[in-house]
Amino acid sequence: MAKRSNRIRIAILGASGYTGGELVRLLALHPNAEVRALTAERHAGRPFAAVFPHLAGVRLPDLVRIEEVDFGALDLVFCCLPHGTTQEVVAGLPAALRVIDLSADFRLADVETYAAWYGHAHRAPALQAGAVYGLTEIERARIAPARLVANPGCYPTTAQLPLVPLIEAGQILAEDIVIDAKSGMTGAGRAAKEEMLFSEVSEGIHAYGVARHRHAPEIEQGLSRAARRPVVVNFTPHLMPMSRGILASIYVRLAPGASAQSLREALRTRYGDEPFVRIVPEGASPATRHVRGSNFCLIGVFADRLPGRAILLSAIDNLVKGASGQAVQNMNAMFALPETTALEQQPLFP
Amino acid sequence: MAKRSNRIRIAILGASGYTGGELVRLLALHPNAEVRALTAERHAGRPFAAVFPHLAGVRLPDLVRIEEVDFGALDLVFCCLPHGTTQEVVAGLPAALRVIDLSADFRLADVETYAAWYGHAHRAPALQAGAVYGLTEIERARIAPARLVANPGCYPTTAQLPLVPLIEAGQILAEDIVIDAKSGMTGAGRAAKEEMLFSEVSEGIHAYGVARHRHAPEIEQGLSRAARRPVVVNFTPHLMPMSRGILASIYVRLAPGASAQSLREALRTRYGDEPFVRIVPEGASPATRHVRGSNFCLIGVFADRLPGRAILLSAIDNLVKGASGQAVQNMNAMFALPETTALEQQPLFP
Amino acid sequence: MAKRSNRIRIAILGASGYTGGELVRLLALHPNAEVRALTAERHAGRPFAAVFPHLAGVRLPDLVRIEEVDFGALDLVFCCLPHGTTQEVVAGLPAALRVIDLSADFRLADVETYAAWYGHAHRAPALQAGAVYGLTEIERARIAPARLVANPGCYPTTAQLPLVPLIEAGQILAEDIVIDAKSGMTGAGRAAKEEMLFSEVSEGIHAYGVARHRHAPEIEQGLSRAARRPVVVNFTPHLMPMSRGILASIYVRLAPGASAQSLREALRTRYGDEPFVRIVPEGASPATRHVRGSNFCLIGVFADRLPGRAILLSAIDNLVKGASGQAVQNMNAMFALPETTALEQQPLFP
Amino acid sequence: MAKRSNRIRIAILGASGYTGGELVRLLALHPNAEVRALTAERHAGRPFAAVFPHLAGVRLPDLVRIEEVDFGALDLVFCCLPHGTTQEVVAGLPAALRVIDLSADFRLADVETYAAWYGHAHRAPALQAGAVYGLTEIERARIAPARLVANPGCYPTTAQLPLVPLIEAGQILAEDIVIDAKSGMTGAGRAAKEEMLFSEVSEGIHAYGVARHRHAPEIEQGLSRAARRPVVVNFTPHLMPMSRGILASIYVRLAPGASAQSLREALRTRYGDEPFVRIVPEGASPATRHVRGSNFCLIGVFADRLPGRAILLSAIDNLVKGASGQAVQNMNAMFALPETTALEQQPLFP
Repeated sequence: MAKRSNRIRIAILGASGYTGGELVRLLALHPNAEVRALTAERHAGRPFAAVFPHLAGVRLPDLVRIEEVDFGALDLVFCCLPHGTTQEVVAGLPAALRVIDLSADFRLADVETYAAWYGHAHRAPALQAGAVYGLTEIERARIAPARLVANPGCYPTTAQLPLVPLIEAGQILAEDIVIDAKSGMTGAGRAAKEEMLFSEVSEGIHAYGVARHRHAPEIEQGLSRAARRPVVVNFTPHLMPMSRGILASIYVRLAPGASAQSLREALRTRYGDEPFVRIVPEGASPATRHVRGSNFCLIGVFADRLPGRAILLSAIDNLVKGASGQAVQNMNAMFALPETTALEQQPLFP
Repeated sequence: MAKRSNRIRIAILGASGYTGGELVRLLALHPNAEVRALTAERHAGRPFAAVFPHLAGVRLPDLVRIEEVDFGALDLVFCCLPHGTTQEVVAGLPAALRVIDLSADFRLADVETYAAWYGHAHRAPALQAGAVYGLTEIERARIAPARLVANPGCYPTTAQLPLVPLIEAGQILAEDIVIDAKSGMTGAGRAAKEEMLFSEVSEGIHAYGVARHRHAPEIEQGLSRAARRPVVVNFTPHLMPMSRGILASIYVRLAPGASAQSLREALRTRYGDEPFVRIVPEGASPATRHVRGSNFCLIGVFADRLPGRAILLSAIDNLVKGASGQAVQNMNAMFALPETTALEQQPLFP
Repeated sequence: MAKRSNRIRIAILGASGYTGGELVRLLALHPNAEVRALTAERHAGRPFAAVFPHLAGVRLPDLVRIEEVDFGALDLVFCCLPHGTTQEVVAGLPAALRVIDLSADFRLADVETYAAWYGHAHRAPALQAGAVYGLTEIERARIAPARLVANPGCYPTTAQLPLVPLIEAGQILAEDIVIDAKSGMTGAGRAAKEEMLFSEVSEGIHAYGVARHRHAPEIEQGLSRAARRPVVVNFTPHLMPMSRGILASIYVRLAPGASAQSLREALRTRYGDEPFVRIVPEGASPATRHVRGSNFCLIGVFADRLPGRAILLSAIDNLVKGASGQAVQNMNAMFALPETTALEQQPLFP
Repeated sequence: MAKRSNRIRIAILGASGYTGGELVRLLALHPNAEVRALTAERHAGRPFAAVFPHLAGVRLPDLVRIEEVDFGALDLVFCCLPHGTTQEVVAGLPAALRVIDLSADFRLADVETYAAWYGHAHRAPALQAGAVYGLTEIERARIAPARLVANPGCYPTTAQLPLVPLIEAGQILAEDIVIDAKSGMTGAGRAAKEEMLFSEVSEGIHAYGVARHRHAPEIEQGLSRAARRPVVVNFTPHLMPMSRGILASIYVRLAPGASAQSLREALRTRYGDEPFVRIVPEGASPATRHVRGSNFCLIGVFADRLPGRAILLSAIDNLVKGASGQAVQNMNAMFALPETTALEQQPLFP
């Protein structure tokens, strides 16, 4: 296959899950990207529209098995495989091929921490050493030249975007941070499980993974870097009846001299030029419905009635800024394209 | 304000409702359109993001009253006002200004029929005489040169797209057509009413406007034109707990010699080149979730167990193909632009 | 185990599905019933609250395998097993034990019809010959003395309650009946399937099993009995984002001389004394939300705009009147208890 | 009207809102209660089923205006009127009549606090002095003989049931308590507001009333009593797309020597005999869907990863234990009936 002009030639591995679907949706409007291969082991041989009929209008190759992909004819791989599997697959890719991994496999720089939380030794520690954590607004300079980018988790994106700059700016203490997060159901993936059936989920909410969710060490890694010392957080995720969206309500202690107002200003300063991070006006409350389908992160700051404390509210679409949108943003950064390319679509509300 | 290059200068009247929000969302990606004015009587003086915070990222003029708009500096008005009001407002606009009206005010060619269903005499019968019914795929040739386009209702769009070509092709009889339609709640507008509260709507479904919904005469007008004789239909709309989408399940009698297969072929022939109408594969069932946020109409055909009958299934997003998307499609047709401009965004699923 | 006074000693086979949960919920308030055994193969050995935590407040035996049940110490078995399996299990039960079967296994009197729709020969044709169809309001006299009651399907209950009396009374024709039904997701059971995940179902609607759903022959059996000749119907079910409820919108032809008004009167006459069937006032539209959790069936009648036709609307809770509630009603009839016992709970709205 | 045997003769003032509907639903199964009057100013003269069609099966008096009620023939009034209004209405009732008020009007013992949060002076301070706070499990002894019971708010019930005993038992510190609460939409009432429409609420979540919700002082009043010193809390409520249910995720500091285990034991000891408060097993996560329609409160305790801290999870149905169910429980206590009377209905799931 001849390369079409200046298009980035792309494969999406594990394309039958929600993050795969979102990558295709976003890339369909990307003038510099071309999806050359889509893999899904169980669905190999079928058209992509068989797993995602809403995208039947996009011209795409059929689904194949990973071993059928001609990786030599590609520039970039988006890897949407389950954790564990990913390490081995990525280890087997040509060294010249750039990789954006949407799994958790390369997010934790410390392979011991990985082993402790995931229950097995890391299978590609050398690759891990070269992986760059892809929280675009924070790690942009390291992402641009990277070969392997570990795209952040959805909860860690939501939590770190407000917290990292405030810790770095000395506006809040890194102690006793409580992150109460509410997620839509796509965050739990597309695998069929009884507890994810419509009738089990509708009209209810519950916490899960309390004090043992694997996104906790990822958040702590980012906050520890910002604080330059080990940070432990409370991270309590909840599942609720919506498809997309995460709202993190974060309860923090103010540094001496800081206030909700100074926090808001510090965030405005930090994110003033960012196209996707928006500090909402004082008194406004970030709502997940206002970012649906978009790459935006909305952040609000409120004074707490408890003296010396503040409340941060952070909202994203977990499948876009929390996964595939940030992955495309990282691709744009890696290939020297404007970061907003293919991400200009506005949120869909209602 | 000087005209910016070749942009169509646009005002949206009644911009604080859902169709106004959708026009802004879609036009934000339109390279040849510029929103110059947005009106909303109750919200005049406020930024547009005060009524639609999800669109805070779009550069827009503040909301004003209609009388504050400089209509002389515009090329096109989208009118999203309540029915009745619309006739008077449109009657007062400069004759050179082109108008796409999303209300019901100019859809019924026969002003007597209008009076019978809306309870008052038509207030602009002369304008009505020149209005073109904006069902793009059916009326394209008349839309292009029109000054005033009456954008179709959401239910009539869903029902006519499959029915009109089949009646014209002599594939189905125009007698005893039963249209059972299921709509999301945005179809009922944004005005606050008890029966539209989340808790009243969630987890339930009911029929409404049975045998007296005002979209019935609009559907009958289109089918009568196709049949070249007066047609009466059963149209039974239902409200259900989703925000967007209409599914029409249509029960029809086959013409002698016709079959589900011949109906499918007739539709494929008719819509083969259309970018937005898609006949789904045999056995597939059109789902509203697969068109959400997009301008697509999906149509499926099934044989009925009742001999001599067939079942048509038609799905659209009521706010896009059923309102603002079709309005932008009509604008493109009126201004000689590719019809798909700004409508390339793929459906958002889940 | 000694029998506690005059309590009916009950086992529920296949208790981990939604109909099992509902039986327990309803029987918990029954003064004459005692649940002695609950089976669930995969969950044997676990407390019932492990599969239905909402019922942790009810004193119940742990889940066991079917072979662990002492059927000799029981009076009644509710059978909530998958179809096919059921025939063999019921065939193996002591002849003195009465059975209410909630599966489809004994609903079709004609075993040939069963074989044609279910793809295998009936495995207990002798039992089938003695089974009574448990549509309480229609078959009450035969249910009371029955040994084996085949509890009706959810859709057939919704459709037959309005249709059977109207056909019997000669008010409507049995030709060209179109039944457009909308069901909540519990109707699809509790087994984990991708297409039933919250994110796949929320915010959408689609038809399924078009012209081939297995409830069609069950409906036709009932209507054929009423018409005293073979009847074929259009039955088109849809799945929508709610947990409970079925609304059937039924399009019928009037018999000569009949009208919407005469239909309403015929239904009022037929159901005047029934505690669970309610003909709603003229102009009111039966809503599934108004029967949620209750054994009620609401029926409305509207004149059609198509001359000589009418519209019937019928709403039930698929898990109560469409399954477990009707099963308890049948139990009451079989054991000479007031039919409303344990079914007095009012609908839960919102 | 002659008193029927030993029935409590009841009026419900402001019966057209959700709490009124729930009172009628619950009392319909109460053997010792008789609803004699129902008021709703806007709907006076209409049957109750006109505002709540789901309760058409309950025999009830028509809706009337308050001034039409013969209060001399009653034993008890449930007052479901808006705050402010309530004080004047209750002040005008016969002194012999007992009152359970579901508004916020008599919950705050300190009328200065009331004035500060509600923006006007209390209009019945003498009555306030005699009002008893109706958190049944905590104030039972004072409720039984009370003339005027102030039924607690939904959020305060959810938060206080776990917190009050733990503070009293010295298991947790009263400092820095963070209460992140998620509520269904019925908590916002039945008045029509744009932000409560289905399409505005579905598929989203946001915080509201951050640091200024009027339930904060009510919670603080209860915790201050328990701590015997003034307590200030963080209370951050969120609205989400479900109709019923509140989940409070509460982040607390352990007292020296305490642990998640000791907290769980303290709660088990405190609530061991309570029919409606259930401490879930270790590792289980209380879900609102498991209490829907019931008077239960589920409480879970988890160790936090932050040293010296714990997480409490508390779930109720806001309309039952958080309003009308607790009101009936209080009625039972006031009239020396078993507290569970009419509250034995199990949760409705799904």
